[in-house]
Amino acid sequence: MTTNKTPITIAYGDGIGPSIMQATLDILEAAGAQIAPEPIEIGEKVYLSGQSNGIEASAWESLRRTKVFLKAPITTPQGGGYKSLNVSMRKALGLYANVRPCIAYAPFVRTKHPNMDLVIVRENEEDLYAGIEHRQTEEVYQCLKLITRPGCERIVRYAFEYAQQQNRQRVTCFIKDNIMKLTDGLFHQVFRDIAKEYPDIQHDSMIVDIGAARVADTPEAFDVIVMPNLYGDIISDVAAQIAGSVGMAGSANIGDHCAMFEAIHGSAPDLAGQNIANPSGLLHGAIQMLVHIGQSEVAEKIHHAWLATLEQGLHTADIYKEGQSKALLGTTEFAKAVISRL
Amino acid sequence: MTTNKTPITIAYGDGIGPSIMQATLDILEAAGAQIAPEPIEIGEKVYLSGQSNGIEASAWESLRRTKVFLKAPITTPQGGGYKSLNVSMRKALGLYANVRPCIAYAPFVRTKHPNMDLVIVRENEEDLYAGIEHRQTEEVYQCLKLITRPGCERIVRYAFEYAQQQNRQRVTCFIKDNIMKLTDGLFHQVFRDIAKEYPDIQHDSMIVDIGAARVADTPEAFDVIVMPNLYGDIISDVAAQIAGSVGMAGSANIGDHCAMFEAIHGSAPDLAGQNIANPSGLLHGAIQMLVHIGQSEVAEKIHHAWLATLEQGLHTADIYKEGQSKALLGTTEFAKAVISRL
Ligand SMILES: CC(C)[C@H](C(=O)O)[C@@H](O)C(=O)O
Ligand SMILES: CC(C)[C@H](C(=O)O)[C@@H](O)C(=O)O
Repeated sequence: MTTNKTPITIAYGDGIGPSIMQATLDILEAAGAQIAPEPIEIGEKVYLSGQSNGIEASAWESLRRTKVFLKAPITTPQGGGYKSLNVSMRKALGLYANVRPCIAYAPFVRTKHPNMDLVIVRENEEDLYAGIEHRQTEEVYQCLKLITRPGCERIVRYAFEYAQQQNRQRVTCFIKDNIMKLTDGLFHQVFRDIAKEYPDIQHDSMIVDIGAARVADTPEAFDVIVMPNLYGDIISDVAAQIAGSVGMAGSANIGDHCAMFEAIHGSAPDLAGQNIANPSGLLHGAIQMLVHIGQSEVAEKIHHAWLATLEQGLHTADIYKEGQSKALLGTTEFAKAVISRL
Repeated sequence: MTTNKTPITIAYGDGIGPSIMQATLDILEAAGAQIAPEPIEIGEKVYLSGQSNGIEASAWESLRRTKVFLKAPITTPQGGGYKSLNVSMRKALGLYANVRPCIAYAPFVRTKHPNMDLVIVRENEEDLYAGIEHRQTEEVYQCLKLITRPGCERIVRYAFEYAQQQNRQRVTCFIKDNIMKLTDGLFHQVFRDIAKEYPDIQHDSMIVDIGAARVADTPEAFDVIVMPNLYGDIISDVAAQIAGSVGMAGSANIGDHCAMFEAIHGSAPDLAGQNIANPSGLLHGAIQMLVHIGQSEVAEKIHHAWLATLEQGLHTADIYKEGQSKALLGTTEFAKAVISRL
């Protein structure tokens, strides 16, 4: 029995989930990560068994004890009555900060934006995700966008602290306060107030539409960007995709007590069971997790081996481009290629 | 006195507004557009004189009579209490459809997406733009997202009718109904229902975050995209920018009785009075207007002359790129160059 291993909760998820989780765990183990994974059951089967938020009631015990969760993507069954597992987890565990690095790995991964290296810090609990929605009449439906001062303070402070720790130079705020003067106005005001406490970090703000356009056009001009939940959802997918692929981006969901790490992509049921999925997104989530639990050296080692794999033109099918790549690997072969470069 | 000229209401706006409006009117006149412009006062001065929505009360008479408005960008003064003129106009005149063509003009305008040719049909009155926002406590702020069945029906039908008239093949719907199951769910359901009435037009739907990522990455894969107001605001800026520049895109705001045409960019006060602004965005709005009032031939003539100008490497400073362009023109010189090619 090893006592110096950090217990973490894991879930294999649905679709391509089990295969990318296995690949990720294999790489982590080979790299010497000191973790003791505890599997829990989430996703499609759990939804269908009657848990409306897709997680076994008993699983919360593991999550609350380990406080660290590595989660593969899940499938939500078609039809009504199912609550988003992600949103449930974020709320139940107080995971207020969603950190999404969007980095180009040119020339090894094809991108039109070879110099981009930005991080989106997305507020993760409030906004239209608060889940307050109702039907007023047959004809009129409403959803409430909720923005609170403590919520804004937490996420904005997190963004500046993150920038400071990661030696990043600038934090940009995206809001639409020319229209939502109270809600987005509050976010903006809190941003300006907290920015004053970090005189060494530059700061600026943009209206979200033009900000999104700039990210899509000249992402290399950005460093850290902080924004409310829904904008962060949309713009982090844009940024991850133009950096190379949403299939490669990982995400950390951070709270004061717990943290959840995942790929930003979905469970892609049509690709399941074919050993072709790219484990890189979940692996990047796992790398963020290792840093979080104080195993930065292992994290770095894995990141370098992953990069060395790409540098040698070894890719899964989603990233493979004729003329650029040397070889097309399956999920397990890709994991082995990373392991052999550790 | 000419009686066959269509009366239109115009506003010179603020910042670069007057200069791009003059350039646009000069081109329209030289092309033989049969219009009789009636100027009204909107924007900064009107706000500061105490009209909280930036338009002279008397101006509504002209708008309601001509039913056609060509509007230059305006500046909203800093500070509180000002309502968005655009939102006020859209609501007061029932301009429910915002039509934004995002087309690449490669190789004459530099873009990473030379084959893109898509049109965003944005719902223009509902969603978070309904203007229902309040402060519950010092700490808690709310904004209401409002989606109605008639609102969804109007905009979705408009998108399919537009696709049919313009010989476009496919309409795609962007929604986030995995989270907003009622509001965005309604939009999605109405989309599926109305699509059945147009069997000759293909249709599909995407979750807005992945849809936005695809637009930013492979815009050439899209044709017509219909979506709720806020998504349309953000994603049309993304699409216009990566097509070449937000500075070149025009926008039509269409209602059952009235229509407003404009550039999608702002008033850029820092560029005002220097004869350097690009009139192309407003000109594209004016071209949409000419089609709307039944002067399609003039519209086409202007579009060709504009394209011929670009093809010969003549550009305003915002579009001018060393090595690609032959000459850098001021606003009035650019207008003259277009006129000489009519
Ligand atoms: C699956 C969905 C609920 C989720 C979100 O909207 O937050 C996803 O898109 C993400 O970005 O993590
Ligand atoms: C100026 C602003 C109110 C407007 C909007 O948000 O609709 C603008 O961004 C647009 O897209 O026309």
